[in-house]
Amino acid sequence: MHIKKFVTPEIIFGSNAISQVGEACLRLGAKKVLIVSDLGVANAGWLEKIIQICKDSHLPYATFTDITTNPKDTEVVKGVSVFRENECDAIIGIGGGSVLDVAKAIAILATNSGKISDYEGIDKIEKPLPPMVMVMTTAGSGSEVSQFSIIVDSERKRKMTIVSKTLVPDIAIIDPFTLMTKDSALTASTGMDVLTHAIEAYVSIAATPLTDVQAKNALYLVANYLRPSVASKTNMEAKEAMAMASLQAGLAFSNAILGAAHAISHAIGGRFPLPHGEINAILLPHIMDFNFIAVPKRFTEIAEIMGIDTRGLTQREAGNRAVAFVNQLSEDIGIPKRLRNIGITEDEINLISQTALEDACMITNPRDMDFIQVKTLLENIL
Amino acid sequence: MHIKKFVTPEIIFGSNAISQVGEACLRLGAKKVLIVSDLGVANAGWLEKIIQICKDSHLPYATFTDITTNPKDTEVVKGVSVFRENECDAIIGIGGGSVLDVAKAIAILATNSGKISDYEGIDKIEKPLPPMVMVMTTAGSGSEVSQFSIIVDSERKRKMTIVSKTLVPDIAIIDPFTLMTKDSALTASTGMDVLTHAIEAYVSIAATPLTDVQAKNALYLVANYLRPSVASKTNMEAKEAMAMASLQAGLAFSNAILGAAHAISHAIGGRFPLPHGEINAILLPHIMDFNFIAVPKRFTEIAEIMGIDTRGLTQREAGNRAVAFVNQLSEDIGIPKRLRNIGITEDEINLISQTALEDACMITNPRDMDFIQVKTLLENIL
Repeated sequence: MHIKKFVTPEIIFGSNAISQVGEACLRLGAKKVLIVSDLGVANAGWLEKIIQICKDSHLPYATFTDITTNPKDTEVVKGVSVFRENECDAIIGIGGGSVLDVAKAIAILATNSGKISDYEGIDKIEKPLPPMVMVMTTAGSGSEVSQFSIIVDSERKRKMTIVSKTLVPDIAIIDPFTLMTKDSALTASTGMDVLTHAIEAYVSIAATPLTDVQAKNALYLVANYLRPSVASKTNMEAKEAMAMASLQAGLAFSNAILGAAHAISHAIGGRFPLPHGEINAILLPHIMDFNFIAVPKRFTEIAEIMGIDTRGLTQREAGNRAVAFVNQLSEDIGIPKRLRNIGITEDEINLISQTALEDACMITNPRDMDFIQVKTLLENIL
Repeated sequence: MHIKKFVTPEIIFGSNAISQVGEACLRLGAKKVLIVSDLGVANAGWLEKIIQICKDSHLPYATFTDITTNPKDTEVVKGVSVFRENECDAIIGIGGGSVLDVAKAIAILATNSGKISDYEGIDKIEKPLPPMVMVMTTAGSGSEVSQFSIIVDSERKRKMTIVSKTLVPDIAIIDPFTLMTKDSALTASTGMDVLTHAIEAYVSIAATPLTDVQAKNALYLVANYLRPSVASKTNMEAKEAMAMASLQAGLAFSNAILGAAHAISHAIGGRFPLPHGEINAILLPHIMDFNFIAVPKRFTEIAEIMGIDTRGLTQREAGNRAVAFVNQLSEDIGIPKRLRNIGITEDEINLISQTALEDACMITNPRDMDFIQVKTLLENIL
């Protein structure tokens, strides 16, 4: 057995866990904190809530909310300026994956020199980062527990995958109440992102028993609670289950890494301002079908966790049923089926295929993929 | 849902993971490290190995090995002196639960004033501890990942349970190779300790989905690999499985806490120099039987994870089969059945019962226990 590493932040999970954000920052020695967020989160009232908690904790703060979906290096640069001008020494991220990834990237440049693109790849960060407390408001990217930050290089129009143990936040706060302000489309796409994390981590070549147990429970929760969570903003049982699913899938993929769906999704997201989870959802069943021959037994297990009775089925039949389950789930919650539905055209496919092959997530995909295989797969989904 | 917290060290797991101990200490900023160990570990050659790694890493060190089973406060005091005299600033623990618990207690008094008994209970430690890298050589106590340190108060002749997030080591190193030097009796008793951790954490009132998944896999691994691990020092598949079981059970109980078996076991271990795992093994089936009515569904799940076909059984029957499984496992690996077999006499029972009720682990037991209930249970096992 190769040596496996497993890194996790301190986790605070539960209703009203968000109220602990001030105490968490003070415990880490924060003197003045930069609160990183975006307009959607601000409009939902969560930024104001964080500001109030900082005030109550006598913790000085500055704010930065100039962040878009699939956030760019230029936004990181702006955030670093705000951090420096205000002489902050710690960071709170409150939001979905885009916000948390920018918060992490600001942390990198707060203590390390150069441009954010200097840190693309694995373990490039040299100096320790300022304390980070991440509050997750989508279930979700898993960024609150992961060692990943994904930032768009705006010149090259591609997503950079930055991976480092030091990007694991000090404290992750997951409060299911924050999920009640998400609309159904965002709940659907971020929920399918969780499913993609769970399945890619479970079939990853870097999976371990420590990541497997988290991935499997995340898969079970998504299979049972994503539909009701999309159906109702106020179904707290479903919100709690999806918050836990997001957390557990995050713990799994942060340590087992991901696969071809994320590699391709990053390539598409770098060029088009599309929801990351929706792209993953379109790709996932096709990648599962492609990957089947690498880990057939694992796909039977995936089917069983989804609630499919696999007795009497061949491994191939069980794998097909798992793929069909994902397709049906996507359809039920209104995810489009084809790449053209989200605006991708045939003349983009060569470039997307080439970029995907260079993504760090491709390394842990259980089945090798070459250019022709990526291209053919994308043409079939077009 | 109440707010749940989950704390984990960075984990390095695998064959020859021990070789990373020098790099791990340097990464944490260590300038001179105190290596804490005991004679058994030294005789097996592991202490020498750690010393060589420190030399190769140009990391100055001192050593402290004056530790017994069920270690005492007086041993901690000696270790603190060695730490101070040698101007150490970091700690490596290499050994089983006794060694790692002393290493943690030395860390407490290295930066906090007073006596170790000042820190008995939950969250009493105020100042940050020096960096700690813990190398586990028994599968085992789980101390390498847990927020616990159990130290005997030699005046009061009782075990003190010290619980604090800051006791979670910075880095835990688990190397299955180190298990190959354990004799079969130690493999048996430490393996039953792992089983007790997994079951008590799974039925604990503080269990969460994050701890459940770890506890369940630990239980599965013990049920399938403890027998072959006791049978052979060189069965690497079994050693790896038991090392993972110990790790996962440790992650579960560190965050879900334990129950009545550990509360009573601490009370006995404080008065008699007996192997902790063996005491737990004798108590466990009786505590399972007592706890059944609190969480009947969980005991059916435990039976299923052990490989018992529960179809057609009532919950009570399934629970009984789980208890029988534990009894059979104990018998197969040579664990005694009764307390008198390990030297406990009737006139000790009142004091043991009273002490057990005051142990922190009793709080999370799923069924309330009063003095008469503990006493009756112990009389029945005598």
